[in-house]
Amino acid sequence: MQLGFIGVGNIGTPMCRHLIEAGHTVLAYDVSADHLARIVNLGAQAADSPRAVAQACDIIFSSLPGPREIEQVALGEDGIIEAARPGLIYVDLSTNAPATAQEVCAALAEQGVIMLDAPVSGGVIGAERGTLAVMVGGDLKTFETCKPLLEHIGANVFHVGDIGSGCVAKLINNMLAFINTAAASEGMALGTKAGVDPHKLYDIVQASSGASWAMNQFPNKVFHGDFTPGFTIDLAYKDLRLALEMGDQLSVPLLMGSICINLMRQLRANGAGGDDMSSLARVVEDAIDWQIRAPQNM
Amino acid sequence: MQLGFIGVGNIGTPMCRHLIEAGHTVLAYDVSADHLARIVNLGAQAADSPRAVAQACDIIFSSLPGPREIEQVALGEDGIIEAARPGLIYVDLSTNAPATAQEVCAALAEQGVIMLDAPVSGGVIGAERGTLAVMVGGDLKTFETCKPLLEHIGANVFHVGDIGSGCVAKLINNMLAFINTAAASEGMALGTKAGVDPHKLYDIVQASSGASWAMNQFPNKVFHGDFTPGFTIDLAYKDLRLALEMGDQLSVPLLMGSICINLMRQLRANGAGGDDMSSLARVVEDAIDWQIRAPQNM
Amino acid sequence: MQLGFIGVGNIGTPMCRHLIEAGHTVLAYDVSADHLARIVNLGAQAADSPRAVAQACDIIFSSLPGPREIEQVALGEDGIIEAARPGLIYVDLSTNAPATAQEVCAALAEQGVIMLDAPVSGGVIGAERGTLAVMVGGDLKTFETCKPLLEHIGANVFHVGDIGSGCVAKLINNMLAFINTAAASEGMALGTKAGVDPHKLYDIVQASSGASWAMNQFPNKVFHGDFTPGFTIDLAYKDLRLALEMGDQLSVPLLMGSICINLMRQLRANGAGGDDMSSLARVVEDAIDWQIRAPQNM
Amino acid sequence: MQLGFIGVGNIGTPMCRHLIEAGHTVLAYDVSADHLARIVNLGAQAADSPRAVAQACDIIFSSLPGPREIEQVALGEDGIIEAARPGLIYVDLSTNAPATAQEVCAALAEQGVIMLDAPVSGGVIGAERGTLAVMVGGDLKTFETCKPLLEHIGANVFHVGDIGSGCVAKLINNMLAFINTAAASEGMALGTKAGVDPHKLYDIVQASSGASWAMNQFPNKVFHGDFTPGFTIDLAYKDLRLALEMGDQLSVPLLMGSICINLMRQLRANGAGGDDMSSLARVVEDAIDWQIRAPQNM
Repeated sequence: MQLGFIGVGNIGTPMCRHLIEAGHTVLAYDVSADHLARIVNLGAQAADSPRAVAQACDIIFSSLPGPREIEQVALGEDGIIEAARPGLIYVDLSTNAPATAQEVCAALAEQGVIMLDAPVSGGVIGAERGTLAVMVGGDLKTFETCKPLLEHIGANVFHVGDIGSGCVAKLINNMLAFINTAAASEGMALGTKAGVDPHKLYDIVQASSGASWAMNQFPNKVFHGDFTPGFTIDLAYKDLRLALEMGDQLSVPLLMGSICINLMRQLRANGAGGDDMSSLARVVEDAIDWQIRAPQNM
Repeated sequence: MQLGFIGVGNIGTPMCRHLIEAGHTVLAYDVSADHLARIVNLGAQAADSPRAVAQACDIIFSSLPGPREIEQVALGEDGIIEAARPGLIYVDLSTNAPATAQEVCAALAEQGVIMLDAPVSGGVIGAERGTLAVMVGGDLKTFETCKPLLEHIGANVFHVGDIGSGCVAKLINNMLAFINTAAASEGMALGTKAGVDPHKLYDIVQASSGASWAMNQFPNKVFHGDFTPGFTIDLAYKDLRLALEMGDQLSVPLLMGSICINLMRQLRANGAGGDDMSSLARVVEDAIDWQIRAPQNM
Repeated sequence: MQLGFIGVGNIGTPMCRHLIEAGHTVLAYDVSADHLARIVNLGAQAADSPRAVAQACDIIFSSLPGPREIEQVALGEDGIIEAARPGLIYVDLSTNAPATAQEVCAALAEQGVIMLDAPVSGGVIGAERGTLAVMVGGDLKTFETCKPLLEHIGANVFHVGDIGSGCVAKLINNMLAFINTAAASEGMALGTKAGVDPHKLYDIVQASSGASWAMNQFPNKVFHGDFTPGFTIDLAYKDLRLALEMGDQLSVPLLMGSICINLMRQLRANGAGGDDMSSLARVVEDAIDWQIRAPQNM
Repeated sequence: MQLGFIGVGNIGTPMCRHLIEAGHTVLAYDVSADHLARIVNLGAQAADSPRAVAQACDIIFSSLPGPREIEQVALGEDGIIEAARPGLIYVDLSTNAPATAQEVCAALAEQGVIMLDAPVSGGVIGAERGTLAVMVGGDLKTFETCKPLLEHIGANVFHVGDIGSGCVAKLINNMLAFINTAAASEGMALGTKAGVDPHKLYDIVQASSGASWAMNQFPNKVFHGDFTPGFTIDLAYKDLRLALEMGDQLSVPLLMGSICINLMRQLRANGAGGDDMSSLARVVEDAIDWQIRAPQNM
């Protein structure tokens, strides 16, 4: 079985590497010659277009920046569609708009290609460690075929539903992570201003009904004023815009999500778009110097 | 050691009962004769005023509706202060405004009484099972004295900091529980409208970065349209108002918290103040019938 | 001077009619044969494509639903660009995204065509009465050339700045109209619930610092529960999305605008997208029956 | 007819002065000896308590900071109530909580005193010029009696409804002024970032459906970065808190108002509570330097 991999950037590279290390032959393509050289060094072979990858492979993976690039790789000039044939499987690991996933899937299906949307959660570190969550939408039988491959990439592989539903689950999960971060920021700022040790407050809340995964990042990052990414505000913003667009299309009020994107706009307006997502805490309360207020020995 | 207990309502009664069952003699008072009769049936003795409780006891507990009642019981006519003396300990288990806790503590301290604020988290069910979290503010040595007693009431007993800080932690924890519930509601409404099975979405998010304690209540309550309390919107609203008042006094912006209280106002305006706190999900998306959309066999 | 007019729907028709009544010869096109027949009845001649209009005319106007249709008419198959030549002037009266206006303008400019964006404010009634405000972006000299024609269409013709700035001004104006409507709704709901006669409150606020143009619609519409459009929620929503997209692109926090679009989402989720924009008042307080509370004789 | 005036601070003094200048004898009281000396210099006589004022006068006015002071002056030790008698009229010109106005009125009514709540709008400048709006709640016949006196103080004297309704109208009017200011700030920031001259945008919006009284302050203040008060954020905040408390009591959702108070919290957290209310514009977009972008000759 010949595998293909299109898009070997910071997160695509380790995912592709896991497939190679599992013993698979991988034909790779990237618009960047540097990225392509890097993955060849890791054991892949190089192709000169998505079409060339599609011609030679049984299953193609891709990891791309967003809807525009996915459309281009799948349906554009020299794209997968130019080598489409019945039986070809295309698994897109990018974070896509659900509607775009559905449109691309339908266009490929006319040529016999089956597409899955399979966005991942866990960031560059999760990709490197192979601990990503993979949320898959599309044909169940095809999912079963691909599942052993996806398990090289991520520790938790979920089948969500029809095509596009992988992206729905990913976007909603991330929206909740961002909102819960903003909420934790308000709570921690309020507590600190009220004179409570943020570390103690953290321990209590995480053992109680206010607990969230999003708060995990506070002790090591926010409390020390460390906002090195991780997952940047700019990337979080891209995901949240896609979630809010879903709300626009489906007429679902998203007040919390809307407040959250405004906090991100404010960070971006102040040049902090490249900082870690946890810097949402800075918008809520610029005046608090967590580091000074935290006990010395922590 | 003689214990007192003032306020034996729905949550005060089981807390008081745990102390009796641990072998302590308890002298109780309540404005309601029915409540008082109920706790006497469970083994307490009855007093006719907070002052009478204070006169006879070494350590007094109270469980009251809010700041106004706490001031009345502690400092009002026939209140604790009328029998104040050095060495008396007063542990208030109510959810109070931190500023009120500090004021009452200061007034009692002038007469030698030491006060702890020790609000609890976990609701009536937690009170009955003795699994409450207890968040304590005030003098550390007095906390150590009272800790064995508080451990009859709750499974997790935390010392947070100075007087009032127990209430700070409680109010912030609850604010986060409410916001995270509203966030989960947005996410679940959006996913369901997008055609994803809410149970699958729940499983994925709870295993990923969007996870929160607040989402726990969705499968058994929200997805089935079951909004029987539990913890009512009216009680949640009372807590959130106290948290927002702290924000007003300390000039901490609380956008998420402010949106959340407006959702509660909307529920109360529609006569749903007595429903469970999870009914925040109904405001986000009235149009969704979770029950129908959920698979039949779940 | 031969004029063209592309898009003669509910608002395009009266604008085109004013040009005909001023003595101009107008060649018209519309995708709907019915719309085209209607304007021919009013004295226009019919063309079979935007290209045909462009070939025969000196100045072309258009009034279209949004960015996608404008791109199609200007740059698509059988579009204006296929008959482009130096000296041709294209004045788009639609509400467009500023970025799209700039892109279309640049593409046409390569063929010598000068484009103005000239969105209008005032609705169908303003179009019929010729009282529209026209907000024009683009080359100043071309604006001066077109101004006498635009003055047949609208009573107030403004030159705002470079291409796209007409749309910027229009979108911002409308965003403020929507927000001020939502604000007035909160104020009026609060006052009415507090027992104050809404008509008296209206008179006082409109004479004081809380006054806004947006409140004008309350006595005749909101207070009587009359939400027949006027300007629909669906149209308002389209404008507000374009304004918020500008905020996304320019990283400007728009908290008030974001809350407002959520109120619109809620109305649309409840099937009220076709109601008048003033139905924002219904979201704020469904429980208030303005009509009953208003004095009988008003 | 002997008049009394309690509270002759920055806004009380010019109001009291207008009554003196109209030929009335005024007996004044203030907690500050300096304030009292100042009004005596302007022709008043000095009393040593609210009770003393009440004993000697037929109609008493007061101008006080808020609910707490009003309760003290009316019902506290040496307060009006100690000299209460049938026929005495008390007109409170302060901005009060409607519920407090009703409680104080009821307590005085038991002794025969009739109270009106009559808060004013227009600030210190309006008070000095006698151009205030006066919004009066309470008994209509008493209103008619006092109207000629109130017309010395303000140009527009409105009877709103029952006791407390003057405060309702005042608080709602001010809430709308604040929200409209925040909205205008978002619009102006967005337009300026998009490259439009803010003065042109101002002219267009004020002639269109986005117009509001609140925008009037932009050309002379915001565009020049001039935030000298006028009406401070701290005072605006006090009014908005009272409006939101009404929303809490009446279960009226106030999303726009809630966002607005968070902008104020942010300003106060940054030490800008003493700046002019128009500094709401600074929160929306700190990055914009209006002054530089505005044309040189304006």
